[in-house]
Amino acid sequence: MLADQQLLRIPGPSPVPPSVTRAMGKPMIGHRASETKKLLQSIKPRLKPIFGTKQDVLVIAGSGTAGLEAAVVNTVKPGDEVLVVVTGAFGERFSKICREYNITVHQLNVAWGEAVNPAALKQALLEHPQVTVVFTTYCETSTGVLNPIDLLAKVVHEQSDALIVVDGVSCVAGVETKMDEWDIDVLVTGSQKAFMLPGGLTFIAASERAWKVIEANEQPSFYFNLQKYRNSMNEDSTPFTPATSLLFGLDQVLNLFDEEGLDIVYARHQLMMNMTRAAFRAHDIPLLTDDQSASPTVTAVRPADFSAEDLRKVIKEEFGLSIAGGQQHLKGEIFRIGHMGYCSPADVLQIIGIIELGLIKIGKKIDLGKGVKAAQEIYLQQEVLS
Amino acid sequence: MLADQQLLRIPGPSPVPPSVTRAMGKPMIGHRASETKKLLQSIKPRLKPIFGTKQDVLVIAGSGTAGLEAAVVNTVKPGDEVLVVVTGAFGERFSKICREYNITVHQLNVAWGEAVNPAALKQALLEHPQVTVVFTTYCETSTGVLNPIDLLAKVVHEQSDALIVVDGVSCVAGVETKMDEWDIDVLVTGSQKAFMLPGGLTFIAASERAWKVIEANEQPSFYFNLQKYRNSMNEDSTPFTPATSLLFGLDQVLNLFDEEGLDIVYARHQLMMNMTRAAFRAHDIPLLTDDQSASPTVTAVRPADFSAEDLRKVIKEEFGLSIAGGQQHLKGEIFRIGHMGYCSPADVLQIIGIIELGLIKIGKKIDLGKGVKAAQEIYLQQEVLS
Repeated sequence: MLADQQLLRIPGPSPVPPSVTRAMGKPMIGHRASETKKLLQSIKPRLKPIFGTKQDVLVIAGSGTAGLEAAVVNTVKPGDEVLVVVTGAFGERFSKICREYNITVHQLNVAWGEAVNPAALKQALLEHPQVTVVFTTYCETSTGVLNPIDLLAKVVHEQSDALIVVDGVSCVAGVETKMDEWDIDVLVTGSQKAFMLPGGLTFIAASERAWKVIEANEQPSFYFNLQKYRNSMNEDSTPFTPATSLLFGLDQVLNLFDEEGLDIVYARHQLMMNMTRAAFRAHDIPLLTDDQSASPTVTAVRPADFSAEDLRKVIKEEFGLSIAGGQQHLKGEIFRIGHMGYCSPADVLQIIGIIELGLIKIGKKIDLGKGVKAAQEIYLQQEVLS
Repeated sequence: MLADQQLLRIPGPSPVPPSVTRAMGKPMIGHRASETKKLLQSIKPRLKPIFGTKQDVLVIAGSGTAGLEAAVVNTVKPGDEVLVVVTGAFGERFSKICREYNITVHQLNVAWGEAVNPAALKQALLEHPQVTVVFTTYCETSTGVLNPIDLLAKVVHEQSDALIVVDGVSCVAGVETKMDEWDIDVLVTGSQKAFMLPGGLTFIAASERAWKVIEANEQPSFYFNLQKYRNSMNEDSTPFTPATSLLFGLDQVLNLFDEEGLDIVYARHQLMMNMTRAAFRAHDIPLLTDDQSASPTVTAVRPADFSAEDLRKVIKEEFGLSIAGGQQHLKGEIFRIGHMGYCSPADVLQIIGIIELGLIKIGKKIDLGKGVKAAQEIYLQQEVLS
């Protein structure tokens, strides 16, 4: 194998563009100096269109889970009851955090690989009218499902006074997101997926409705106190020492988004999803999710007649291509390809070309090139990027 | 197009591996300090197997042409007659340098795209018995021809007392080279091709026979005086300020060669050549050179029924994939793909997949995926890398 070549195509962390790596290598600056103020001034307005909100998008130094915990501790307090919509491993994370804080959790469990049916959410809210917050996941990383957040938010607000809190970690910046238009109350994401950065930053924004709840909430929190972040952001500052190198990188990521255009970024992700799905279809290898529920950032494949783990092993060893396996009960049952962030349609052709070789290597009889051809045909049909 | 993605597949400069880029970013050190001595001690023994020589491989700060000029000024003097074997644009460079120094140049001109026939070289030496040096090219970058240097050196030494000087810029470190065994007198290469570095270093080694000529030569030269480089190298030093960041990078390149193994490096290049050639054959697109004359580092393609320039333009604009055009009379007639250095079989699949899309875009009717499939089949037949 070519030394020093790693093709990282798990559903996050994702590869970091060279110019972002270079930006992160800039000399350190004082966290209370004017340079940091300017950096935040450059970042602040450019995060809003990615969330689709007029609200400030707050930046916390921490992993995505820190953002999820911040969403929880700012919106609920002990004794509250909440509804957590669980479509996979990351939906369950909200339940775990809530239980840690002695919140009564009702779960709406959806079969892994399927999206949430808005009618089922409505029914759950009718059964638990006392819930004050509904937690849900935009893209479920563990299955590659993209939930219909616009429809879920509509149901929540029609049916209750509850807030809707959305984990957007594995898709925001890769999929169009309209926080204000869809009436999402709290939206959280992380830096290591479609944002093309290493892990270490989490982004969170809250609606007017959510801010009223947050301001009235007496749940103790210090590092995760969103009001502190909002107050600091108003002064182009941060309440605690920021992860400065990641902010340098973020500023450059936003330059790259400006250069490509957010609409094109989203269209590129859609195209990569369609190319990936067409490739496996061409080989009659089953996909975990149907077309309507599929996320443009990650595709889960559920092989019927070969071992996902054998395939992952051979392509990692022979080509340095990393794809993810399944989690929990899907462990060994599926493999997941991340096509997000710093990933192009040409990279998808490479991923498919390698996987085809890997399938032959593990003894599956396939027509070489057939999946690549199917992906190429999809590329040619979608002229938006050309 | 994905911002910040450039796929550089011209026949050099070639991409630089991330760990080499990082190494080049190390803090500067004093050029007469012990750190530089240690760096040269690490580099020196590891260059020899790449050249296939027991001689020291001297490192000069300069481009490949600086190495070629050093080879000229150290081995010839005004009034001398030399034979230059010209198989393309880079063969001619030796003639130009020699003429600048008032050397009488006899040229053995070989049709571009063909390798030198040893019998033709023998004939040329019979016609010009007075020549003191024969200049030739190992890989002719402008055509993708690999000349049979072992056979040419044999002819030169059987037929004359002349030295044989070889330009190995676009293949050494990608193709096995046995300078001592083949009896090459001077071998030159550069940093920006199979060495996976930016341009800026040139490497040169001389045989015992050549050193006698060099020591006796009174042609003035200061920066290119190889005796100075040899004397300094004996003390693990350099005669002039070295290009230190490139030396940091070179040390890491040698680590990567150690990690992969030079035999595997060469087998990988051979495999990439075979994959590339099979892909174009599958589409009935003519190659410029025949199999016996093909270089493992660069493939030239001579399309019969589409424009090489149109193809280059569309794949650059749409995918960021750079391949080279033709030079001089082959301008517009051919395109050239560099598959050298930091390039893997998986990268070849990507290159072919993109070129297939580009061909469709410029209106050529092809079976999508057919070239990728042919390349995949070659990969599976050659198990040496797996």
